[in-house]
Amino acid sequence: MPIEMTLTSLDNPVFQTYMLAASIMLLKLMFQPWMTVVRMMKIGAGFRSPEDLKKSPLNPKPNATQLDVIDYVDRSRRLNLNDLETIPGFLIAGFLFVLVDPPLQLAQILIWTFVLARAAHFVAYITAQLHDVRATFWTFSSLSVIAMTGYILMQVV
Amino acid sequence: MPIEMTLTSLDNPVFQTYMLAASIMLLKLMFQPWMTVVRMMKIGAGFRSPEDLKKSPLNPKPNATQLDVIDYVDRSRRLNLNDLETIPGFLIAGFLFVLVDPPLQLAQILIWTFVLARAAHFVAYITAQLHDVRATFWTFSSLSVIAMTGYILMQVV
Amino acid sequence: MPIEMTLTSLDNPVFQTYMLAASIMLLKLMFQPWMTVVRMMKIGAGFRSPEDLKKSPLNPKPNATQLDVIDYVDRSRRLNLNDLETIPGFLIAGFLFVLVDPPLQLAQILIWTFVLARAAHFVAYITAQLHDVRATFWTFSSLSVIAMTGYILMQVV
Repeated sequence: MPIEMTLTSLDNPVFQTYMLAASIMLLKLMFQPWMTVVRMMKIGAGFRSPEDLKKSPLNPKPNATQLDVIDYVDRSRRLNLNDLETIPGFLIAGFLFVLVDPPLQLAQILIWTFVLARAAHFVAYITAQLHDVRATFWTFSSLSVIAMTGYILMQVV
Repeated sequence: MPIEMTLTSLDNPVFQTYMLAASIMLLKLMFQPWMTVVRMMKIGAGFRSPEDLKKSPLNPKPNATQLDVIDYVDRSRRLNLNDLETIPGFLIAGFLFVLVDPPLQLAQILIWTFVLARAAHFVAYITAQLHDVRATFWTFSSLSVIAMTGYILMQVV
Repeated sequence: MPIEMTLTSLDNPVFQTYMLAASIMLLKLMFQPWMTVVRMMKIGAGFRSPEDLKKSPLNPKPNATQLDVIDYVDRSRRLNLNDLETIPGFLIAGFLFVLVDPPLQLAQILIWTFVLARAAHFVAYITAQLHDVRATFWTFSSLSVIAMTGYILMQVV
């Protein structure tokens, strides 16, 4: 690596790969709550706080059943929780992985495996596929982060 | 930028802004579970695990209703979950944003919009304002992170 | 610090300490959902989505009670949520802490306090110890992150 180049410069193709994938996953992380909001507004239900039953511009005709758990909304919340369990871990592990200067091809494989696995997991979950299907995609994303972390650990010790 | 200065030095005013805001948001992230604990202890209820019903110095007079969901405690847990959905995303997006060297004024606007929006969201939620009010503040914080991520993406591609 | 050394190089013992601890905590973060999966498969219950009741290779004999909340599985989910409340905050605060170049001994104390406290918290929670016990360990981990953040804040202002 040329002396002027730092690991966290976009001139470093590993960092460039990470930054592209990280941007996509950050957008996904921020997008999921919007899906929850859209679904809540669409059916006027699936709310969570007692005060959400007050009459307001966003809720012109309140009724007590609006606090019931409804799968259409709760599915998006579960997806969000699933994102929280995986995406911040990927973003942090991926960044630390860049800092130990891994081979480009390994970085590309692990990083894009994560992104593709999460995209497939999202489709499988939102369309309510069998547990086995979404579990398979989730496994790939989890193993990708574990592999990056294992590589970091090997460089450290 | 002078040759001796790195993006992640406190001499870089963008990084300095980020570090101040990041510290505040990290403290907020760590503070919320403490609020949950204080509220649980104050009313001796809102516990979550079966073993929390055992007699102990922190729970001298156990009874089965202590595991019921109580809004006073659950509100703080919901706030915590809301923090988890936004703050780590902000901290990571903000840091990567610093690394692509954005204009100072843009960085200041996006970073402080997030912090102020989260402060306002906290006040609105803890005082049980209308859903519309807290949703508005949440929207500003979400758009701030999305804008930072969009800026990163533009630099990467 | 010699002129050639950067703060985020493994030559920096503070960063080396952080990277070792961060790898361990990332593995813990990724491990907890696996524990949930293993426990769900072992007892064939504690599922969360309606479609998980469909007959499949992973669920050959479905029945409606499989969606009930069962402490054996839910305990692992609660541990995961507790991880989400603390580990990403530690990973980010710890990294920013490295960037303000703290004394090595302070860094070692705060970083290993967090790791040990989380390990003890895990054991206390999974074996259903008194709330007082796990709360004590949780407190150490929380104070460690707060101390790192306070140190960052002092350097920034």
